[in-house]
Amino acid sequence: MARTKNLTAEEMARQQKEISVSEFFAKNRHLLGFDNPRKALLTTIKEAVDNSLDACEEAGILPDLRIEVQQTGEDRFLVEVQDNGPGIVKDQIPKIFGQLLYGSKFHRMRQSRGQQGIGISAAGMYGQLTTGKGPRITSKVLRRKAHRYEIHLDTTKNRPIIGKDEELPEWNLKHGTRFTLDLEASYQKGLRSVDDYLKQTAVANPHCRLEYQAPDGTERQYERATDTLPAKAEEIKPHPYGIELGHLIKMLRETKSRWLNSFLQEEFCRVGPKVAKDILGTAKLSERAYPSRIARQEADALYRAIQKTRISAPPTDCLSPIGEERILEGLQKECDAEFYSVCTRPAAVYRGNPFVIEVGIAWGKPSGAELEVDERGRIRSRKRKRTVDTEDLLGNADDTVRLLRFANRVPLLYQQSACAVTKAAIQTGWKNYGLQQPRGGLPVGPAVLLVHMASVWVPFTSESKEAIAAYPEILKEVKLALQEAGRKLGAYIRKGKRLKREFEKRSYIDKYIPHIGIGLQEILGFGDQERHDLVERLRDSMETTRKI
Amino acid sequence: MARTKNLTAEEMARQQKEISVSEFFAKNRHLLGFDNPRKALLTTIKEAVDNSLDACEEAGILPDLRIEVQQTGEDRFLVEVQDNGPGIVKDQIPKIFGQLLYGSKFHRMRQSRGQQGIGISAAGMYGQLTTGKGPRITSKVLRRKAHRYEIHLDTTKNRPIIGKDEELPEWNLKHGTRFTLDLEASYQKGLRSVDDYLKQTAVANPHCRLEYQAPDGTERQYERATDTLPAKAEEIKPHPYGIELGHLIKMLRETKSRWLNSFLQEEFCRVGPKVAKDILGTAKLSERAYPSRIARQEADALYRAIQKTRISAPPTDCLSPIGEERILEGLQKECDAEFYSVCTRPAAVYRGNPFVIEVGIAWGKPSGAELEVDERGRIRSRKRKRTVDTEDLLGNADDTVRLLRFANRVPLLYQQSACAVTKAAIQTGWKNYGLQQPRGGLPVGPAVLLVHMASVWVPFTSESKEAIAAYPEILKEVKLALQEAGRKLGAYIRKGKRLKREFEKRSYIDKYIPHIGIGLQEILGFGDQERHDLVERLRDSMETTRKI
Repeated sequence: MARTKNLTAEEMARQQKEISVSEFFAKNRHLLGFDNPRKALLTTIKEAVDNSLDACEEAGILPDLRIEVQQTGEDRFLVEVQDNGPGIVKDQIPKIFGQLLYGSKFHRMRQSRGQQGIGISAAGMYGQLTTGKGPRITSKVLRRKAHRYEIHLDTTKNRPIIGKDEELPEWNLKHGTRFTLDLEASYQKGLRSVDDYLKQTAVANPHCRLEYQAPDGTERQYERATDTLPAKAEEIKPHPYGIELGHLIKMLRETKSRWLNSFLQEEFCRVGPKVAKDILGTAKLSERAYPSRIARQEADALYRAIQKTRISAPPTDCLSPIGEERILEGLQKECDAEFYSVCTRPAAVYRGNPFVIEVGIAWGKPSGAELEVDERGRIRSRKRKRTVDTEDLLGNADDTVRLLRFANRVPLLYQQSACAVTKAAIQTGWKNYGLQQPRGGLPVGPAVLLVHMASVWVPFTSESKEAIAAYPEILKEVKLALQEAGRKLGAYIRKGKRLKREFEKRSYIDKYIPHIGIGLQEILGFGDQERHDLVERLRDSMETTRKI
Repeated sequence: MARTKNLTAEEMARQQKEISVSEFFAKNRHLLGFDNPRKALLTTIKEAVDNSLDACEEAGILPDLRIEVQQTGEDRFLVEVQDNGPGIVKDQIPKIFGQLLYGSKFHRMRQSRGQQGIGISAAGMYGQLTTGKGPRITSKVLRRKAHRYEIHLDTTKNRPIIGKDEELPEWNLKHGTRFTLDLEASYQKGLRSVDDYLKQTAVANPHCRLEYQAPDGTERQYERATDTLPAKAEEIKPHPYGIELGHLIKMLRETKSRWLNSFLQEEFCRVGPKVAKDILGTAKLSERAYPSRIARQEADALYRAIQKTRISAPPTDCLSPIGEERILEGLQKECDAEFYSVCTRPAAVYRGNPFVIEVGIAWGKPSGAELEVDERGRIRSRKRKRTVDTEDLLGNADDTVRLLRFANRVPLLYQQSACAVTKAAIQTGWKNYGLQQPRGGLPVGPAVLLVHMASVWVPFTSESKEAIAAYPEILKEVKLALQEAGRKLGAYIRKGKRLKREFEKRSYIDKYIPHIGIGLQEILGFGDQERHDLVERLRDSMETTRKI
């Protein structure tokens, strides 16, 4: 091979070309969560399940999903995810599953699981890259025939190629979608597994029913804890505080509003006639100016005027938090603990995006005797009844607590340390709430911390949506929610500690009082009955004077 | 606002649309390194400097760059980066600076700083988003007139809009490019600053000359340590081991080779007639089969046959490591230490991509007296002479060592803990080499560790190119390189420790011998001169019998 010669500007120009977004993500597929075979399996199922749940909820249908994973070769798996959603209109199927950056959720401001229009097509692309086979999709819309597609992704053009397109005379569902994909993968149980993801999905989505068949053939059902769908999230207009200058200029250019005054009121939330007038007054711009004729300097003045004007926080009906009651149901269903504490914070705002933080804590002692107060107010130890599954979520007393992170009801399984939720949990003083906490670490104890962020736009640190970026407003809200739930836990643990100290004292009483009785019997010359009465009275007296 | 009603499949279909890659990255700009104003300034300069250095080296020009940063408002800065590169052909300027995913480096396998065709356009987009002004570019190609462009990015279409396009009758450079951008930013010195980045760039690129004017007006020059350009990196064909099945199928479909046999030899490196025959034999495919007619199952067989065939490692002339001598020069130039140790490893391969790991260690004691052996072989303490800049890189004895990470000669300043280099440094046993090391942490001591990865494709963990993904092969090579350089350091430190022990012994001698002299004088009845002679002889005798 000859040594490369020096290039001229003209020779360099000939080498320049466009790169398609699919080529880019095919080469950088680790950015989308396809770093390794194990994670690829999880990401594929996660993207399919997220899409299914979004579709069911938008259509007002209680989700009923079936997930099947089969091992078809040494390193090959077949994944099938089927939902009872509204189905997908025939023409849209190839684009939704075979084109990156295509979808309905990117441009609107409303809470949903998906937000980018990348995930499911990226899964299909990964399957195609590793097995040569693209995804197969069967979908049926009510009162229409079901359609079955085989799709390939043309990565050079980022366009779907339709392999097969057939109408099915019969299908087992009235409406719904089934996604099937062969891919190179590996399967393993435990933390960050498919099983873990589905379990956590059931915790945060108690209105869902999930059926799961694992590669080893075992079946698992997660039944509904409620038949009520979450309140539907509204779509909102952007809040003026969240708009950057460049975006404002673009909106001015593209608006259909005739005047600046109406532009502000029609394109933003929380801007009425009064606020619009205030903004324009501060910016020294006419209310009747034409938006498309605003020059850059004027737009800059408008932008700065917006920052200086008091505008109320964005509406929060675009959010659909899980709610304290549902979090409690979800935790109780999948995690059998001794004590639960939940907290849903009021809505807050970062960069103009409203969001809500919710926290649930489950706490319990997974081993050894525990204490309870019986009907007569007496302390008893009891043996814990535990279901098999509890071990999955609740650790031992010496373990770091299990942190369950959720964004718009989706469990986040990777990059825990890079996540705002983890940072906030570390920055919370857990010793105040009765848990041990090493310096700079998560607290230690038999507890599960569930943290949910609901927002119209969750700021993920990467496309694979594994960690939430640490905006100061988000950190603050997570800490406040953890503190609120933590205080209740602290009160309970302190009470438990008093109970425990009391119980120890009592066991000493039980142990020594008979000996005291014998001693007194000898000194005072009592008979056995007198001794027995004395001992009983002594015991009662000591029990009633105790302070709990 | 009315509650959102349930949507039908048809209504959902109407909401689906394409998302342009610029819209995607504008909303997710933190993915590209524009998380906050301080980082935005660094990323902008980094992208411009990386492009300038790549262009100069491809054209065989010794790089001479000028970087200017001016503060123009409370939170606004003006950045200007000018190079003496070959210039950019007029027609290419708008696309290179105003379109994401456009460039010459993505599709080829050859070492360069840029690899994605995103960075510099993303900087322009960020500037436009925050100030409303797009980038300005002046460029001149030899024997042509200079051109000056003002560009806007149409984010909806990911296409450049040309604002101004003018020919300059005169320009101060014969050839070169100047990039100018207004952006919202903040400036701060110290770790991860623009100053830090430029200093580290000078260390890893001793053939560059950099002039830098900081926002406070201070000027700084980094002069060349060598006039030799790095050996030019060759472009190579992909190695068969690095190709995935889906990609192989695509190559079979797109190849111009007529037969399978020639396809393998022409499209891959390290495949000659013998290897091609072996592969096709194992795959049970005919040498004369038409590549475009290979079915998926046959391609799968071909793919598996490739994995089973012994194929030699890819050539390494596509790589341009810095080299031990240049690393030493770079370190000595910017970091005045007591001891240096360097190591360039032989080339290795991950996923079919060749790479080289290089390590440099600078070690010195920044405070207090130090020891040296003078011409007469006597140990002396000396005061360190230190330039002002040294403190930047070398820490105190109690500090964690400073880790400088480089990928294709570009300093990596963020996400240190997520980087394969950091992981490898933590997994290395530094106590063997005389440094303290807390469990699970980086070593402690007055040292700088420089680690450079040169590769045709560096697997970054995010688009902002801040950390290298921890492939096992990369981890292993970094550890081997650190160990090799570490052993030399260990030998030196051990020698130093002996010197130090010796010096302590000597100071005892210095302290007590006069007293011994006085004692002997009394006992033996010596005069002062006799005592003086005795003490001197005693001292000489003890010094000559010492073992160093």
